[in-house]
Amino acid sequence: MQPLRFTGRTLEVLDQTQLPEHEIWETCDTYEGVAEAIEKMKVRGAPAIGATAAYGIAIGAQQGSELSKAEFLPFLAGVCERLAKTRPTAVNLFWAIKRMRGLIEANAELEVAQLTELILAEANLIAEEDVRLNKQMGQHGLPYIPDNARILTHCNTGSLATVDYGTALGVIRAAHEAGKNVTVYADETRPYLQGARLTAFELHRDNIPVTVVTDSMAGYLMQQGMVDLVIVGADRITANGDAANKIGTYSLAVLAKHHGIPFYVAAPMSTVDYELETGASIEIEQRSADEVVFIGGKRMAPEGVPALHPAFDVTPHELITAIITDRGAVERPDTDRMAKLK
Amino acid sequence: MQPLRFTGRTLEVLDQTQLPEHEIWETCDTYEGVAEAIEKMKVRGAPAIGATAAYGIAIGAQQGSELSKAEFLPFLAGVCERLAKTRPTAVNLFWAIKRMRGLIEANAELEVAQLTELILAEANLIAEEDVRLNKQMGQHGLPYIPDNARILTHCNTGSLATVDYGTALGVIRAAHEAGKNVTVYADETRPYLQGARLTAFELHRDNIPVTVVTDSMAGYLMQQGMVDLVIVGADRITANGDAANKIGTYSLAVLAKHHGIPFYVAAPMSTVDYELETGASIEIEQRSADEVVFIGGKRMAPEGVPALHPAFDVTPHELITAIITDRGAVERPDTDRMAKLK
Repeated sequence: MQPLRFTGRTLEVLDQTQLPEHEIWETCDTYEGVAEAIEKMKVRGAPAIGATAAYGIAIGAQQGSELSKAEFLPFLAGVCERLAKTRPTAVNLFWAIKRMRGLIEANAELEVAQLTELILAEANLIAEEDVRLNKQMGQHGLPYIPDNARILTHCNTGSLATVDYGTALGVIRAAHEAGKNVTVYADETRPYLQGARLTAFELHRDNIPVTVVTDSMAGYLMQQGMVDLVIVGADRITANGDAANKIGTYSLAVLAKHHGIPFYVAAPMSTVDYELETGASIEIEQRSADEVVFIGGKRMAPEGVPALHPAFDVTPHELITAIITDRGAVERPDTDRMAKLK
Repeated sequence: MQPLRFTGRTLEVLDQTQLPEHEIWETCDTYEGVAEAIEKMKVRGAPAIGATAAYGIAIGAQQGSELSKAEFLPFLAGVCERLAKTRPTAVNLFWAIKRMRGLIEANAELEVAQLTELILAEANLIAEEDVRLNKQMGQHGLPYIPDNARILTHCNTGSLATVDYGTALGVIRAAHEAGKNVTVYADETRPYLQGARLTAFELHRDNIPVTVVTDSMAGYLMQQGMVDLVIVGADRITANGDAANKIGTYSLAVLAKHHGIPFYVAAPMSTVDYELETGASIEIEQRSADEVVFIGGKRMAPEGVPALHPAFDVTPHELITAIITDRGAVERPDTDRMAKLK
């Protein structure tokens, strides 16, 4: 199940806030609509956000097709700016926008219609690449997944978080396809429950055995010897190998370290931000407290009580056994070893 | 707010599964009703369960008041057996039942009416003692709570988990009453959300600043230097100082260790089970997967996907900075130091 369908003029987005109960496709026919779909987490997952933003720029370009050449370039700059403001942490968003800006600059001499066509082709290319790179990542990850591995994962890093196949779930999928008998514990991943709602949904549909656990059960599972490895995705990886990912990931990394369990991060190279030296510079998105306090529309904590909602945390590279990318895996990641992938 | 009201003939139980939305008091006029209130977690928290079971036996004794003396003792034995089968992990349940059985044995010569009266008085005594011991625990815990402490806690260990005042929350309450400027992060505590629903409710009502976080945020808070200490309750503490408590506690203890943050357990002596040498012998209650998968009556994971629901985990004594009891605190608990409290 792919989360995006580009029709050439509009982008259809599977509203992931409604899954698995309802399968609702929302049509975005303006770049503003695309931006809002990202902000409201109807589409989520770093690679999927990157591709969605690229399509957002393509739709924006089409919206500007009646503009003069002189008006078109500033208009496109505004489109890019709007999309860049949707979510701050996942770097794939900025990576995709930067790639589009580069394309626009390099072809600034072209007529509006021709440039629009190029932009559209580039958005399709980004989406196609994502699937190919995920499959490569799956192959690079294979050696780290032993037969009969019992794998703990967090959030959703599968088809729904990418254009297709997935990052960490792509590695699990590759191991399953290679005939390894893997079983998965899916952290439910509060507050959005991407693990219970999306990861369980994807894996169950693909007949990969999956069991849902609350985030608080991870330590217990490891203590009981029920977890052979942890694999997660990333929203941004810095030059030294620090990795921002869904809130709760850092806790898992500390727990894995304490129990001597390998902890892997799987992400495409578009997630690596060589411009930031360490994870300390990553901006952590602080989302609405209501997203913590309300579950399924029902208020759980009493009125007047505040809640925190950092959407991500940063796992320092010392806690990461290997970062698995489409260009290969980096064991014991640090600045030097990460630089070799560049 | 106390969770229990004994009227002399019936026990009124505040249905904590409905808080904070609805304040519903359920009247139990049979020991079976009391047993079901414990099983369904309408009343929960180790000390509250102990007192509730004692009242259950008192109600049972009243139900048997028409029996002959020869029938009465076996009937009471059956009442005790039924109540002992409600939940396996919290030892206070067995402690209270054992205390009642001792009383019954020691007074087996009495007439039915007299024995019933004694049982009733003993149940009231257990409840009264609980409040007094909690306040003593609060005083013994005071030295461990610095002024301006930012405290992380898990589950609910307050008035609602006891007859009144609380264990870990009793220590926090004592610090607040002593004029220390404490602030609390309440883990929401999936799957039952006792932290978001009950701890936030109690502290907010008592004007102790509280902020709700998801269980998965604990590591992030510690990493950011936002937590000065962790304090939790316990459902059973073994002779060596290992402590069973709500699922997720063990993860917090590992995280606290990793960050050099003190980790305290507060529990009355009735929670200490000297008959078990280590936590490895504690039976961990495995509850229904539906309690994980459904939130507020709504299914979150797709149908057909299993979930785990261990209700507790065990924190080894090596991870505990001190165990705070009504008889005093045991720093760096181990078998020798725990034995001195006996």
